[in-house]
Amino acid sequence: MMTYWIDITGTFMFAISGALAAWDKKMYHDLFGVFFTGFITAIGGGTLRDVTLGVHPIAWVKDAYYIIAITSGVLLTIIFRNRILKFRRSLFLFDTIGIGFYTILGVEKSLKYGVNPLAAIILGMMSAIFGGVIRDMMVNEIPLIFSRQIYATACLAGGVLFILLRHLGVAEDVNEIVSIIAVISIRLASLKNGWSLPYLDKRGN
Amino acid sequence: MMTYWIDITGTFMFAISGALAAWDKKMYHDLFGVFFTGFITAIGGGTLRDVTLGVHPIAWVKDAYYIIAITSGVLLTIIFRNRILKFRRSLFLFDTIGIGFYTILGVEKSLKYGVNPLAAIILGMMSAIFGGVIRDMMVNEIPLIFSRQIYATACLAGGVLFILLRHLGVAEDVNEIVSIIAVISIRLASLKNGWSLPYLDKRGN
Amino acid sequence: MMTYWIDITGTFMFAISGALAAWDKKMYHDLFGVFFTGFITAIGGGTLRDVTLGVHPIAWVKDAYYIIAITSGVLLTIIFRNRILKFRRSLFLFDTIGIGFYTILGVEKSLKYGVNPLAAIILGMMSAIFGGVIRDMMVNEIPLIFSRQIYATACLAGGVLFILLRHLGVAEDVNEIVSIIAVISIRLASLKNGWSLPYLDKRGN
Repeated sequence: MMTYWIDITGTFMFAISGALAAWDKKMYHDLFGVFFTGFITAIGGGTLRDVTLGVHPIAWVKDAYYIIAITSGVLLTIIFRNRILKFRRSLFLFDTIGIGFYTILGVEKSLKYGVNPLAAIILGMMSAIFGGVIRDMMVNEIPLIFSRQIYATACLAGGVLFILLRHLGVAEDVNEIVSIIAVISIRLASLKNGWSLPYLDKRGN
Repeated sequence: MMTYWIDITGTFMFAISGALAAWDKKMYHDLFGVFFTGFITAIGGGTLRDVTLGVHPIAWVKDAYYIIAITSGVLLTIIFRNRILKFRRSLFLFDTIGIGFYTILGVEKSLKYGVNPLAAIILGMMSAIFGGVIRDMMVNEIPLIFSRQIYATACLAGGVLFILLRHLGVAEDVNEIVSIIAVISIRLASLKNGWSLPYLDKRGN
Repeated sequence: MMTYWIDITGTFMFAISGALAAWDKKMYHDLFGVFFTGFITAIGGGTLRDVTLGVHPIAWVKDAYYIIAITSGVLLTIIFRNRILKFRRSLFLFDTIGIGFYTILGVEKSLKYGVNPLAAIILGMMSAIFGGVIRDMMVNEIPLIFSRQIYATACLAGGVLFILLRHLGVAEDVNEIVSIIAVISIRLASLKNGWSLPYLDKRGN
């Protein structure tokens, strides 16, 4: 039940982030473009995860509350599109919370379907970032995952931590909370301190 | 049986539209590029729909007539590529008929697989437009769905109408015909009258 | 068992080709970008094939050795990134061997899942080339399949040959070897002799 509402809330936040991105670009300024970008951003990661795992039916196809959450998120963005810009920083925070939750939910769902731990970590990371990758490609920006920021890497680290604590016998719900906080903390700390991934130059250094 | 031939005919028309688009662009002028673009355009929407629904095997993978229809469409385009340009307006009409049929077939198939009505409308629309979206991306054009024309919106309106009439108890076959005609009429009327979707400007008007 | 090691080796080679391509482009120079491109290149074709066929679980999700092979390929590329450039020509050869094996494995797997022979040829070709198509798109190059070289066409020809020999009753293992060699030979001969596909000009010649 808890995970259900985490999922719905995450979907809602991703829809807002997609609609905002579309509205920032002139080419997607019409109503359909804003809805479509919000929708694809919101369902992208979960659909990729469920199709890869062979889970059917996919959540948003079975349960209408996902589409209601997406529609609400897009409509609120359109109605409050001027005021919402002032909340951008908090929206960014919700996005960060979103990738935290989605990573760990993705790892858990993958393990439940018999996936090996390494693939579960990768699927958890992918389900967290894929919606945003499509969103950035649709509005012609270089996806955030390629910007040398600690973004996908924070998801991977949280996934590794979850698997490790699980093997050490830590209780599932404690593990969930600790791992989600790890993803969020790494992402926030890296932004604050300007951390980035090692750069590989052409001369081999 | 009727729906089977509608499906094959739609696949054939989408293959022609893909091959024509590829041939218009210099970079896809070789035989393989024309075939590949025609093929992807023709199978894109149905494959997306069936993978999302978890339907296996996908139609074109099971039944060779789909590939024969695609190959015929591409070959005819290559052989008659000069004469076919004169028929462009009628091809456009067939494309419009195609999205009409595919929308309603997609909605019906989704409902048959237990999908909620809201998701069925969205999947119907997506199965109608997805092949064309990939086609436009392959030939480096902004997908038609983002051009402020009434395109995907006509599919959504037809899907909503189909669901409404179904809830009112209208007979399935009457409903199919009425809803298909609705998609086609909205698309044609909007083009003739220059209708477009509301534009959201940055100042919030 | 033989096909398993062919699959693992192919995955390893594709990971190297993806990591090399990413490393050649400045925007993917960080560690994550190189890993991600190697990973997507390595799993792209097999995932597309298995999702289309409805095979679950997908190989790399079930068996951790795929991810270990990919990680090893990417790490070796990063460590030996200067020396590896000298082996580019042999890497190109391995890529060619890779598409040979993947084409025929893809055709066989498709037939095993009840796919019609025409679709099996197309799926075999797609599973061989799809990882490379995504790789080229990620590093902003025109995919190799659109370069008028005999590339995907070599896969198609090998797939047709395999189906023909199968219908003529040729033993499976002999057929595999002959068809794989056909793909590789056509690709190598076309490069050496500058063969390309017929070009369709706008005046209809």
